[in-house]
This record gives sequence, structure tokens and C-alpha cells, in this order.
Amino acid sequence: MANKFGNLFTITTFGESHGPAIGGVIDGCPAGIELDFDAIQKELDRRKPGQSKIVTQRKEPDTVEFMAGIFEGITTGASIGFRIVNTNQKSKDYSHIKDQYRPSHADYTYSQKYGHRDYKGGGRTSARETANWVVGGAVAKQAIPEIKINAFTSSVGNIHLETPYQELDFSLIESNIARCPDQKKADEMIDYIGEIKKQGDTVGGVVTCVIQNVPVGLGEPIFDKLHAQLGKAMLSINAVKGFEYGSGFEGAAMTGSQHNDIFNPNGSTKTNYSGGIQGGISNGMDIYFKVAFKPVATVIQEQDTIDKDGNIVKMMGKGRHDPCVVPRAIPIVEALAAMVLVDNIMLDKARRI
Amino acid sequence: MANKFGNLFTITTFGESHGPAIGGVIDGCPAGIELDFDAIQKELDRRKPGQSKIVTQRKEPDTVEFMAGIFEGITTGASIGFRIVNTNQKSKDYSHIKDQYRPSHADYTYSQKYGHRDYKGGGRTSARETANWVVGGAVAKQAIPEIKINAFTSSVGNIHLETPYQELDFSLIESNIARCPDQKKADEMIDYIGEIKKQGDTVGGVVTCVIQNVPVGLGEPIFDKLHAQLGKAMLSINAVKGFEYGSGFEGAAMTGSQHNDIFNPNGSTKTNYSGGIQGGISNGMDIYFKVAFKPVATVIQEQDTIDKDGNIVKMMGKGRHDPCVVPRAIPIVEALAAMVLVDNIMLDKARRI
Amino acid sequence: MANKFGNLFTITTFGESHGPAIGGVIDGCPAGIELDFDAIQKELDRRKPGQSKIVTQRKEPDTVEFMAGIFEGITTGASIGFRIVNTNQKSKDYSHIKDQYRPSHADYTYSQKYGHRDYKGGGRTSARETANWVVGGAVAKQAIPEIKINAFTSSVGNIHLETPYQELDFSLIESNIARCPDQKKADEMIDYIGEIKKQGDTVGGVVTCVIQNVPVGLGEPIFDKLHAQLGKAMLSINAVKGFEYGSGFEGAAMTGSQHNDIFNPNGSTKTNYSGGIQGGISNGMDIYFKVAFKPVATVIQEQDTIDKDGNIVKMMGKGRHDPCVVPRAIPIVEALAAMVLVDNIMLDKARRI
Amino acid sequence: MANKFGNLFTITTFGESHGPAIGGVIDGCPAGIELDFDAIQKELDRRKPGQSKIVTQRKEPDTVEFMAGIFEGITTGASIGFRIVNTNQKSKDYSHIKDQYRPSHADYTYSQKYGHRDYKGGGRTSARETANWVVGGAVAKQAIPEIKINAFTSSVGNIHLETPYQELDFSLIESNIARCPDQKKADEMIDYIGEIKKQGDTVGGVVTCVIQNVPVGLGEPIFDKLHAQLGKAMLSINAVKGFEYGSGFEGAAMTGSQHNDIFNPNGSTKTNYSGGIQGGISNGMDIYFKVAFKPVATVIQEQDTIDKDGNIVKMMGKGRHDPCVVPRAIPIVEALAAMVLVDNIMLDKARRI
Repeated sequence: MANKFGNLFTITTFGESHGPAIGGVIDGCPAGIELDFDAIQKELDRRKPGQSKIVTQRKEPDTVEFMAGIFEGITTGASIGFRIVNTNQKSKDYSHIKDQYRPSHADYTYSQKYGHRDYKGGGRTSARETANWVVGGAVAKQAIPEIKINAFTSSVGNIHLETPYQELDFSLIESNIARCPDQKKADEMIDYIGEIKKQGDTVGGVVTCVIQNVPVGLGEPIFDKLHAQLGKAMLSINAVKGFEYGSGFEGAAMTGSQHNDIFNPNGSTKTNYSGGIQGGISNGMDIYFKVAFKPVATVIQEQDTIDKDGNIVKMMGKGRHDPCVVPRAIPIVEALAAMVLVDNIMLDKARRI
Repeated sequence: MANKFGNLFTITTFGESHGPAIGGVIDGCPAGIELDFDAIQKELDRRKPGQSKIVTQRKEPDTVEFMAGIFEGITTGASIGFRIVNTNQKSKDYSHIKDQYRPSHADYTYSQKYGHRDYKGGGRTSARETANWVVGGAVAKQAIPEIKINAFTSSVGNIHLETPYQELDFSLIESNIARCPDQKKADEMIDYIGEIKKQGDTVGGVVTCVIQNVPVGLGEPIFDKLHAQLGKAMLSINAVKGFEYGSGFEGAAMTGSQHNDIFNPNGSTKTNYSGGIQGGISNGMDIYFKVAFKPVATVIQEQDTIDKDGNIVKMMGKGRHDPCVVPRAIPIVEALAAMVLVDNIMLDKARRI
Repeated sequence: MANKFGNLFTITTFGESHGPAIGGVIDGCPAGIELDFDAIQKELDRRKPGQSKIVTQRKEPDTVEFMAGIFEGITTGASIGFRIVNTNQKSKDYSHIKDQYRPSHADYTYSQKYGHRDYKGGGRTSARETANWVVGGAVAKQAIPEIKINAFTSSVGNIHLETPYQELDFSLIESNIARCPDQKKADEMIDYIGEIKKQGDTVGGVVTCVIQNVPVGLGEPIFDKLHAQLGKAMLSINAVKGFEYGSGFEGAAMTGSQHNDIFNPNGSTKTNYSGGIQGGISNGMDIYFKVAFKPVATVIQEQDTIDKDGNIVKMMGKGRHDPCVVPRAIPIVEALAAMVLVDNIMLDKARRI
Repeated sequence: MANKFGNLFTITTFGESHGPAIGGVIDGCPAGIELDFDAIQKELDRRKPGQSKIVTQRKEPDTVEFMAGIFEGITTGASIGFRIVNTNQKSKDYSHIKDQYRPSHADYTYSQKYGHRDYKGGGRTSARETANWVVGGAVAKQAIPEIKINAFTSSVGNIHLETPYQELDFSLIESNIARCPDQKKADEMIDYIGEIKKQGDTVGGVVTCVIQNVPVGLGEPIFDKLHAQLGKAMLSINAVKGFEYGSGFEGAAMTGSQHNDIFNPNGSTKTNYSGGIQGGISNGMDIYFKVAFKPVATVIQEQDTIDKDGNIVKMMGKGRHDPCVVPRAIPIVEALAAMVLVDNIMLDKARRI
């Protein structure tokens, strides 16, 4: 609970951005997987700070160090322990937020819940935690190489990529720093984020994720429907405010005769409003979903806030924060999706004795 | 897993719509709660079929029968067993769907996953299951009477209730059969559903839920954030395609300086884009979220579909189905919310030794 | 938790001996198992009261009624709901124990933990609950017909069956009411229990269980070792005070050179002090273990005890209680073992993607 | 599962004896505990190798390094990550066991289950793992300082400490290297272990554990009885073959009139055959139990065994192994008991909303 994700393929994590290291334990990874460590590091590099001008300029190499569960490069079935040493937790001055609660952060709620709060760099609430998930997801991806998971930026502020995903070339996702597989839209997004950054402000966005080549039959009714598991995973990411799959919120305005996905003889469907999942179980069609991210709460503008005694104080964000988290959120969305998928493949396998 | 919901306050359910009974076990309910059985039955009545002209005309009394865990009307701390006898599972002819897969139902996915399928009335995939959840939620509500949970219909098709929830009078929700606390909008919705029904079609909609008087500190970071738990719960409901809380998908288009909720001296906030949850933990403000429902897949119109051998066949929905599930979904949304809340109150309590 | 057993093949139960029914939900049973309902009832008959002169003379048919999860006699993969109606909960007078705590029962601890106690027939603490487990175990056995599970009475009081299990004929277990596969020892046990009963007293005993034809590789290190799961299961049975497997407590007095099980070329071992499990994982040899049962606490003799106000009062057991639970515990031990086995077969399967 | 222990206070571990480090994540530890790091290290020192002449002479400092979850020396409620660097995993020659299965070790079962095996130092099956548990237990102890947990050596081979625990002085446990609070018996044990060691052999033993000052009401019926949780925990320790609590196996030979614990007016009992637990729930009396350890399988004597191809080969244990694990098992037993206790205090608290 709390710091554990998954049922059979699980990850349990720890770490604050300003402690010595973050890390975790991957428990339940099948034995016999020959790991490609470069591929794992590459996923971390997609998430790491400082990678482009539209993300935070903090520098952190995010090198993962495996401590157990792998022998001669191959998983043994034992739990996999890993850590990522924090190299950027220099004794910066955090005294200005020690006794203050930043608006729309978790400072206030953590203080109320736990009494004792690690205020440095957001403590456990820092999105630095998601580097751990990327490690777990990178291992998960290698356990299910046949499944293709592609996430990309589909909105930044009011700039929307309207093209249906079927018409996109996913190989372009990594070709620009917005991670939008449409160069024109990507340029608009990059420019807009640049502007927002100049204002000391931040902006939200939307990530779309497409999962292809999924076997039929994954997902556990009634309370572990595949989309419910995916939804919970995505809603765990910092700043996420919404999740929809298939027709999503638009589907709510449709009629049944429009929305029904008519079958082809081979069990595939002519349309895919269902989003690849029916009754909580994958039907072999593409799974696709959208994840909404709010704007980062730290703005480099003066704001009113309160201190722990309820006094109104002036506060201004310091440090190097992301003007828009969406480009760096892409590998995180994929990582969580990969862990959900491998978990459900294992669950499905277990049911077929 | 699968048929179990919750961590400490759990419900594990069973039942097909055409078997002898549905039911479940509530495990972990605190001892000493004097149950109001009429209130429980009233919740079931809000969900039951046949209650109005805009829902299915099937008749089912949905009387809950408690079998254990209650002594002299008071919970004992033991598991609470209950069942609801199916009175409407007459030997209707289902041979027409025995070997056919209805479009956008779970017939195909269940057949592929399990091999052996109960085709009568949808078997385990029937939304009849949600009556079990309403029982669990009704008990949960009584464990936390101080918390106010109100769900209502906010959209049917393209008819949207735009009024901010703060300006609505929740006591009007039950005053009309659309369960929309704005009589004018309700009338529009009722008319529209009536039309759709005449066409043998169905339509989707949106439910908004508001949870008030929530203590500060509920929710478990990192992977059991309060909104992630609520989201997973809502995504478990049949036909749900999306979940958003607080600013939701609209928040993705905002800037940080707009979106930040500025504190009042007492820790409350001037705005509530956060939706009552920050860092996954309740902050004492109202929690509110939206749930998108697709249109019911069973339409009384001829459609192409396939049989188990992949032959294209004609099919036409039979029986008495809901033209729009949203009015009957209201108590289900509330029930799940109540179970999530009591579970998190218990989890929070456990952490404070 | 609490009323749930198992990881992937789970049973969640409810029921008090004097309520309307006991029952439960089997969640995770694989689809496609054609159930032999007579075999399930036969297991219940082995456990039921009134079956012989050395067990309680209470009469209870213990007829199981399945409510869901089975279609045309075959499991569907959906949760299986069942109940056993209580026919013997007549409005007996329990006022004498309402405010008293029987020695070595759970009256006092339940009262302290829950405040509100169902004092009729022991409420939730009644071993009647184990009938639910027998249902779960009987279904589990049918999921893994290749595995042979035989439990038998190996001690009653100081009468011990010393013969190594390899020299016993398990087909004799059901040939006598003591369920001891050695007629001479069985006669001694039956006579002794008869005597004890005449004195209004009770006596403890030991059950040995042997599991044969187990595949190599079952069990989950580190904290779900196969024997740890079996041990926890057995320690859940009312009145159990100890569990040992393989060499058990005697092994603690041995030296390594005596205790080591030397391999045969095919991976089997010449001796089996390991009890079929090494490092928590089955090695293909017979699994065997012993379970110690204390004497039933209800004696038909006058005893001092206290009431809820701490006054010393005289009490004398009433009703029809077992002079020795061991003969009726045999099917319970087997049932739990079967559920542990099927659960671990599923877990093992999941790991091999 | 597998590498996770506990329900609300959990530890998830990793590590092989010859990898870079072992470690784990403590998830669910309450916030606000001011940790005494010396006390934690002292517990590790009680378990560490090389501490006396009757244990393995391997040298390993076992210094724990905390990486997260603690701020200014106080727990924050976040997950606590820790590791213990392996300093003694020098590139020793393990080629002799690479393709051989040591008798009564887990080499064969791990090979069969996982295919790919870390053969160095036993890999994940090494009892080095238990150092992680000692860390978890040491933190747990500090969360519940009021509860007194004392384990000690009660048997080595056939040398038994027969004195009832009530007559022992627990302050003597650490006064000798056998960890037996009776100097005369301790001397006998030490001599015997010395002899056994000279023979290149090993010997088993028994640990008794006494838990005092336990509040009434801990434990979760039906399947998480306090003693069942303790039993499962103890059966997780390498080499454990049996667990009994209260009267244990001896209780099986007693009559009910002997075995019943008669109440004192204050709810305490005159005798304590129940072992402090009735119906799975603590009754406030001392909890006591015994744990049987088999002799270590590695003997420095030539033995027949097989290689992976089923050939009979000669093998002789190398390295520095424990002639008797019992003295070093004492802190491990205590650590697991402490984690079970704190977990159940949290569970009990959760139930009392």
C-alpha cells in the first residue's frame, strides 16, 4: 500500500529528492529475462531534468544502480533492488519554505497528515519519485517486448493535436523536445512553453498513450478492470487531474447506435470507441487513453500564501522548475502502462491452470 | 483481487443477473455501528430498475438480506454476509445470443478469456452487480455519517448542467427522475431520454459527485492517492469511460498562476481547482469529480455482429434496457465514494499510533 | 484480511453458528472446471456434526447452496458465491453466557476488541465457520485432481500412531470414526474419547497430513514459503496450538550429517527430513506436516469464571460439544492444504510468462 | 508477495549475499518516531557473523545505511529505504557448486523453479537476508517501546532448558554467547556446539520467545489470527521446521479440564496454556512461543550429491558456516515478532473509528 504498485509484478519505492538516494524493489519479475541496461538508462534519460530548454534546467544524471535480483545480466526471479543516487541535493537554502505552505503543493496536507515534514525539495512529494517508476517500467517493457507502448504530447495549454493517432508516425515522437509526433504542432507547443517560461508561469497539457499488439483477455473483472488499473496508475502521477480511455468524455455525448463497435469476422472491430477494452478485458484492438496534467504549481511570481501559524506571507517560487511537465511525463506514462500490462499478463496466465 | 474492493473496509461480491442471487461479504466494517436498514434499502431503491419511465422497465424489488456480522442490529466487527435474491431471472429465451457476441458488450472478451461463458443476461458482466456495491456503500455511509456525499446528473448527451456545484441545491437531486438538481435541465434531459428511447437508441452522460466535510489528511501517497483510489473505483462501474477531479481536463489548458489555490489563514483555499486533494491527500475542501458514462450498448435496432465461428449475423437487442444509465448510476457513484472514504479514514487512523 | 484466505485463489467468508446462514465467496477459481457436487457434499459430510458417537451429537445437514460463478455445472471464472443455511440455531437459551466469559474461549478477547459481541453459540468464533473452508477446499481439490492430499488422526491424548506414514494405507482413514488408518490405534482412540466424554471432559490430539504428487517449484520465497503458507493456514483452525513439517521439532535435536537428504540421480531424495520443501519451494517429494489441537474448552464440569463486571461465577458447559475435535478436523486440514496448493500452482504459473 | 512482509507496517526486501548490497523498503511506518540509530545497529550486531567462537567466522560489519523516509532523525511517514553493503563478497571460487545441488539446500528447487540461478553464496536463499528483517524489526520495536520482546535459546540438540520462562532472568540472555539465560545450560550448549564444530558437523535447536505487556485485542480473526501471523513469520526464517505457542504440541495430550485457563477477576488468567492469545486475539497475558530450527545443511564432511545432469558427485562444504544458527537467530525471531506486533496494533487502531 501507499508506496507499492502492482499485484504480481510490483514495485515498492522510496526516496526524497534531497536525500542520499531514491530507489525501490521490483518484486515478482519473471526469471530469465536478459536485461538491456542501456535501454533502461535511455528511458531514464527521457525523463531526466535538463534534457532540453523547455524543461527544468536542474542537472541530474539519474544513473540507476542495480543491487540484486540479476545474475550475469539475467533476472533470477528474486526481487530486484535498485537505487538512483541524488547528485543535486546540495545544501540549498530551504528555510524560506520550511514553515510555509506553497499553494497547490502538498506541503499543507503532508504537514497535517504526518506532523513531521521533510520540506527540502518537496520531500516525498517530489516528482523525482517517478524516476523509480521509469526503472520499473523499463524492466517491465523488456518482459513483454511484443507489446508496443507509445505515449506522446497531445495538448499543451490550448494547443491541441487533433489528428487521430492512427494517422501519426510514432517514430517522430522523440524527434522533437515536445515529444509531439507532428512537427508543426510541436513547434507551436515549444514556442508557447518558452513564452510561458519567460513569464515565470507554467502550463498544463495532455498525454495520449497507445498500446498495441495486446493479447485478448487481459484484465480482471470486476474491480480490477484493465482500464481501471490503468486509470489508477495514471492518476498516481504528480499533477494528473483526469483520465479517459477510448471515446472518453466525448463518448458520454454519443448514442449507442453511434458508439457501438461493429465486429469484423476475425473478432476485431470496425471502429474502436471501446478503446481496446470491453467489460474491463482487452479485446485485441489498440488500447488508447488520455491523461490530463495540471500546470506545475511552482511559479516564479509573487503569490500570497500562509505559514504554519496561519499568517499571510508573500512567497515566490525559486529554483529551476518545469514550465510544462508534459514532455518529461511521456516516459512515466509509458512506464506505468508497461507495469500494468505485464502484471495483467501474469494474472491472466495464473488463471489458466 | 478481481471481485474484491478496498483495503481495510472491503467488499467481495458474487452474482449473475440470472442466477439465484447476487451478494457479497463486507469485511472490515468497524464494530458498534447501529444500522438503519431502511436507509440501506432506500439506497437500493434509488438504483433499482423500473423506478421511472426513463429507466429499464424490468421489475426487481432488490431486497437485501443480511446473513451475518450484525447482532441485535449492530455490527459486531465480524464479516457481514448479504444477498439479494434475483426474482426476475425467468427462463427467458437467450438462445439468440448464446453463440453470438453483442457489439460493445463483453461477450467476446469473456469468451476469449474464460472459454466457458454464462450468456444469460450478460452473466457476471451485468450491471446488476452494482446493487451489491450499493449495499456496501450504504453500510459505509453509516460508518461515517459526518461526511456528506452527493452525486447528480450533470450531462445527458449534449445537455449540460453548467451551474457550478456550489450554487446547486442538492436537496433537489431526488426531486426529479433525472436526478439533476436543476428542474429546467432535468426536464430537458427527461425529454431527450424519452426521444432516444422511442428510437430504440441509448445515450451517455456525466455524473458529478461532491464530497463535503472531509477531514484533512485522508489518502495514501504514492500509489494510493485519494483521487487515484476514487478514480479506480469509478472506472469499475459498467460503461464508465473517464474520470476527472477538480479542474480535470480543463485544468490542462490553464496556467499555474490561474490554477493555484491561494490559502486563507485557516488553511482553506480561495479557489478549489485542486478538487479538495493535494498530493493525493485531502485538504479539507470539497472533493468533487466527474464520471463519464458511454451509451448503453444494447440498442433496439438491427445491427451486424458475429457469432462464435466468425460468421456475420444480424442481431437486434431484446428486453427492457436503460436508454440512459446515468440516473440509476447516481447511487452507485455515491456508494463507491463512501467505501473509499471509510477505507481511507481507517487507513489514516492506523497510521496514527 | 481477517476473513479472506489466499492470494489468487481466495475465499472470503462470513457466518455465525446461530445466524441464518454461513457462506462465502471463492474468488479466482479458474474457469472450465466441471464440478462434482456430490464430492463437495461428501467433504462437508466428513466434517458435519452428529456423524458418529465420538463427536458432537448436534444435527446439522450442512447442505451447500451455490449462488453464482457456475454455469451448466462448470466454473466460469467468475466469483463463486455459496451459503450453508443454519438449521440448528433454535432459540436456545444463551442468557447464561451472555454476560459471562467462558474460560479459554474467545468471549473475553472479542468483548474487549469489539465491544459488541454475538454471544450465541460463540458467534463468529464458532468452528462452524470451518464448513465454509471445506467448501473452498473441495472446489480447490477439483482444480488440482492430480495432487493427493490425505490427513489422518495421528494422536489422541497420549495415544500416538508411531508408524511412518509411508507404511500406512490411506484408504483405511475413512474406515473408522477416529479417522486413524490403523484399526488397533483407532480402537484405542475411540475408547479413550468415549471415556473422556463420560467424564464431561475433552481431549486434544494431532493430525498428520501428507500431500503427494506435488510438482517441483511451488512456493514463493522469501515470505511466502510454501510451508509458511501451510503453517499459517493450519494455525487458523480453531484450537490449533502448533505446526511442524518434515523433521519438525525432532529435527532440532539432529545433526546436519543425519538430517541432510541425499539426492538420487533423478532429483528425488533418499530420506525426506525436508518434508518435501527446500528453501520454501516444493522439491517433488511428499510434503508432510503435523498439526496440534488443544482440547476443546467447553467441558461439562463446573468451573469458576468471571462475568463482564469481574465477578467470580460458577459455570458449567451446556450443549452438545465435541469431546475431541480431531476426527472432524481431518477434512478441514485437507481443505486448507488444497487451497494453499492451488493458490501456489497459480502463483507459479504466473511467474512463468 | 514473496519478498514483502506485513499488512500495514510492511517490509519489502532484496539482496543476495554476494551482490553489492542487501536492503529493503519499510512502508507504512508511522510518522514522528525519533529513531535511535545505535539501537538499530546494536540489533544488527547481535545477528552479525563473526561475533563469537560458536558462530560463523565470516566477518561482515553489517552497517545499515538509511536512504529515505527519515528527516532530522525522525520518521516522516514516507517509506524508509535502507541498504547494507556486502563487504565480504570477494570473488571466491564458487565453481564447485555452480552445477551441483547441495543436499538439503534450495539449489535444486530454485534451479527447477527459476531456471536461472545465482549460485554464489546461495544467492537469494542465503540467511544474510535476515539482516534486512533485523533492520525492520529494530524500527518496529521503536514504534512500540512499551512492548517487551525477549527471545532466547531454549534447546541446542538434546540440551534443553526446562525452566519455565517465568523463572528466568531475561537480562542474562546477552550475558553469554549461547543467548541462554541460564549460565549452566549455556555452558553445556557452548561446549556441545564446539564439539559439533570440530566434527565439521552442525546441530539444530529451539528458540523460545516471550512477548510481554501486550494490549488486549490484537489480532484479526479468522485468517489473520495473531498466532497464525506469528507462526507464518517464524516459518519464514531459514531452517525453521516448527512453531508452537502456549501449550503447543504438549497441549494436544491434555484434557480440557487441565488446559482451561481460569480467569482472575481482572481478566487475567491463573494459568496461561493459551499463550496469551484466545480466538486469535491477544488477551493481555504473556504471549510465548517456540521455534524449531533444523541443523545447518552445510557440513564440512564429504557427502554424495548430484550435479545438474543427475550424475552422482562427491561434495564437501567449504567456507565458514554456523555450526548452530540458534544464537544468531535470537534477534531475527524478535525482529519478526516486533513487526507482527506493530502491524497488528495499527490494524486494531484502524478498526476503532
